[in-house]
Amino acid sequence: MEKTIAALATPSGVSGLAVIRLSGEDSISIIDNIFVGKKKIADCKSHTIHYGKILDGNSIIDDVVISIFLAPNSYTTEDVIEISCHGGIFNVKKILDLLFKNGAYQAEPGEFTRRAFLNGRLDLLQVEAVADLIHSQSSISSEISARQNDGQFSEKLNSFIQSLIKSASYLELENDFADEGVELIDSPKIIDDINKTIEFCESLIGDYQSSEILRSGYYVCIIGYPNAGKSSLFNKIVKSNRAIVSNEKGTTRDYLEESLIINGISIKLIDTAGIRESESAIEVEGIKLSYKMIEQSNMIIVLNDISEGEDNSISLYESIKGKYSDKDILYVQNKIDLRELYHTSDEFLYISSQVGSGIKAIENVIYSYAEKSIDVQNNVLLNQRHENHLKKAVEYMRNAISELEIDAPTEIVSFEIRQAIAQMEELTGKRYSEDVLNKIFSGFCIGK
Amino acid sequence: MEKTIAALATPSGVSGLAVIRLSGEDSISIIDNIFVGKKKIADCKSHTIHYGKILDGNSIIDDVVISIFLAPNSYTTEDVIEISCHGGIFNVKKILDLLFKNGAYQAEPGEFTRRAFLNGRLDLLQVEAVADLIHSQSSISSEISARQNDGQFSEKLNSFIQSLIKSASYLELENDFADEGVELIDSPKIIDDINKTIEFCESLIGDYQSSEILRSGYYVCIIGYPNAGKSSLFNKIVKSNRAIVSNEKGTTRDYLEESLIINGISIKLIDTAGIRESESAIEVEGIKLSYKMIEQSNMIIVLNDISEGEDNSISLYESIKGKYSDKDILYVQNKIDLRELYHTSDEFLYISSQVGSGIKAIENVIYSYAEKSIDVQNNVLLNQRHENHLKKAVEYMRNAISELEIDAPTEIVSFEIRQAIAQMEELTGKRYSEDVLNKIFSGFCIGK
Repeated sequence: MEKTIAALATPSGVSGLAVIRLSGEDSISIIDNIFVGKKKIADCKSHTIHYGKILDGNSIIDDVVISIFLAPNSYTTEDVIEISCHGGIFNVKKILDLLFKNGAYQAEPGEFTRRAFLNGRLDLLQVEAVADLIHSQSSISSEISARQNDGQFSEKLNSFIQSLIKSASYLELENDFADEGVELIDSPKIIDDINKTIEFCESLIGDYQSSEILRSGYYVCIIGYPNAGKSSLFNKIVKSNRAIVSNEKGTTRDYLEESLIINGISIKLIDTAGIRESESAIEVEGIKLSYKMIEQSNMIIVLNDISEGEDNSISLYESIKGKYSDKDILYVQNKIDLRELYHTSDEFLYISSQVGSGIKAIENVIYSYAEKSIDVQNNVLLNQRHENHLKKAVEYMRNAISELEIDAPTEIVSFEIRQAIAQMEELTGKRYSEDVLNKIFSGFCIGK
Repeated sequence: MEKTIAALATPSGVSGLAVIRLSGEDSISIIDNIFVGKKKIADCKSHTIHYGKILDGNSIIDDVVISIFLAPNSYTTEDVIEISCHGGIFNVKKILDLLFKNGAYQAEPGEFTRRAFLNGRLDLLQVEAVADLIHSQSSISSEISARQNDGQFSEKLNSFIQSLIKSASYLELENDFADEGVELIDSPKIIDDINKTIEFCESLIGDYQSSEILRSGYYVCIIGYPNAGKSSLFNKIVKSNRAIVSNEKGTTRDYLEESLIINGISIKLIDTAGIRESESAIEVEGIKLSYKMIEQSNMIIVLNDISEGEDNSISLYESIKGKYSDKDILYVQNKIDLRELYHTSDEFLYISSQVGSGIKAIENVIYSYAEKSIDVQNNVLLNQRHENHLKKAVEYMRNAISELEIDAPTEIVSFEIRQAIAQMEELTGKRYSEDVLNKIFSGFCIGK
């Protein structure tokens, strides 16, 4: 077992309970230094719970419940103690400080899970699923991560890796027997197997962008000229008076962001400063921010003040469309309460953010675009690390097929396949470098 | 046991762990419907822990650990189950939904603690200490609440109640024997006892304001004319570029609030819109907000732009001082980098929020004022409910003393003392009304 680490495992904040986790060789002796219950924790069995007090000398810090998980039957496979205390920021801090004073070390982000990985309890895909499950911004991504955490995806991936290993082994065996003129290789069969693996990897790669949206949410940015009613629309959709609204142009300066969940999908709505030529340094700063937010969004709503004419913002709309062809872009006619409409076009939404008409329609459009953008096929959340390894693996496999087709020497083909295998084993974490682990775990919360 | 309730007991948010709590007669049967581990929870002992999966039909929702607390050895004294799951918002929601589908009810705020109170496990002062411990904004209030939760304060209060009961009983006994001419009453002794109780109650009342600051933080509001450098000072103290800063007057519109902890005391710093006659509706709205924030603050920093003259803001300072004599008010000379100082006065702080000089001095002053304002004598956090009962109790006790001094009939004196006792018993919760309980628990978080 390693040195003993401690951290708050629940979110920091105000709540009924908070849980502090300890893992390592001194977990038991450290808790016995600061906890007074009916008996010593060292004399208690694994998987039992004990009520008592945390004391700093004679001073009571908190009433707590201690849970004991002895090695190897714990999350990290080490001796783990969980302290369930009152969920106040300061009593939690006091208990942590007391643990540190008694020899525990502050856990690094993800260090508990890192130990679980290094001790063989989870593979890297499961580790990443844990992170995704925790950070889930939607019901759907939560479901996918729970399945991935269960190891079903790792199994499937491993079966493809096994198939590649089999192909490489055949090729290497053929090479060994080459001099004896034995013909072992069934090239079409190997090509077929590799193609199936390529197909699987490519469908995974295709899920990357959807995974990102599932992970972080679908970003919707409201833009337009000053006084088009952007902040009113923003307030109506988020159902609060979050943004100050006035008839004066340039009211909004800092951009505002609010999260909402529509039918289980996380939507991030952004209100921006109106775009115009301005001499005000503050406003120029705000407009720069508007463009930055457009870059980062999946959908852009160009809001037009129809009382200034239907086509008033069309040049803005066209320029955004030209520049961001990969984004979902919507032209919305606002302030229909200020103008009689003789005809409407199916191309546009007609709303009044002031009166509140058409808001439900906008929400429906946002939802339907968002839903389209999160269609994942493989029940797994891809991240950039995965995408990189998969792309490289596909490249090596394509090379192998090309070489098989021109009857290249088998050792060259098997070399390519071995490279592809290495990429896929880095995916599951069968191979790993400290750098990669550091990168993965640095994104974890402390206490996980 | 009552109907079974369920709620998230840890803060909602992203974290390693989340804990969902179930309490009531069906806790065990409900969990056995959705949890699959090595054996049924109904067959397991109290105070044991079990690893397994939460399933919705065949679909895995999460890997969890179940803790069992059988009646009466639980927080509520009912059968309690705690589900320790991954700390993601959506998997937590799914597990809760599953519990509700299986017959659990959403717990009301504080309902677990309410059951603990009604079942005699905690008195009302301990209940309120739990709330204060959880909401503690400072290390000091956390310590005080932990002691109060332990029941030490209740004990002390009960000893004073006992002394009042003794006095009232003597008086009532005397009344019974009045006809027989027996002289039981030692008036000076009773007066002395009541006076001691009054003294205790009054020292508690004196702690009320400090308790409020300990509970919510010490509010510091930065005000001044436009462009005095308020937002720069705010940013310097909170150590981030939270507020947009410019040379233009009226840059800040919405007020900004940030929390910081100086030496364990919670400080709430508020940046406000500059005060001036303005024709801009947005600015006027902001200035109204500035005055509202002043009302709510404990300390007001009037920031003067010294480049406009040392006395430039003195009329604002004087008017604030005249209006809010109970608040700590500070006149600070800003922008000393823009003006050569030939003399300085000990009365003022001289800073440059632009250059960053004098910031530490301001922090020290804020801290020393805040520290003075949280001097509690009784190791207990008073709230308004307590203050009301204590004030009424004191009134009844004073009446009793006046009546004793003029040899009023003993039944009149004992009536006053009984009223004081009733007030103090409402304090501890020995007497309570549903209304009072509803009010106390509505301030609790759900899951506590």
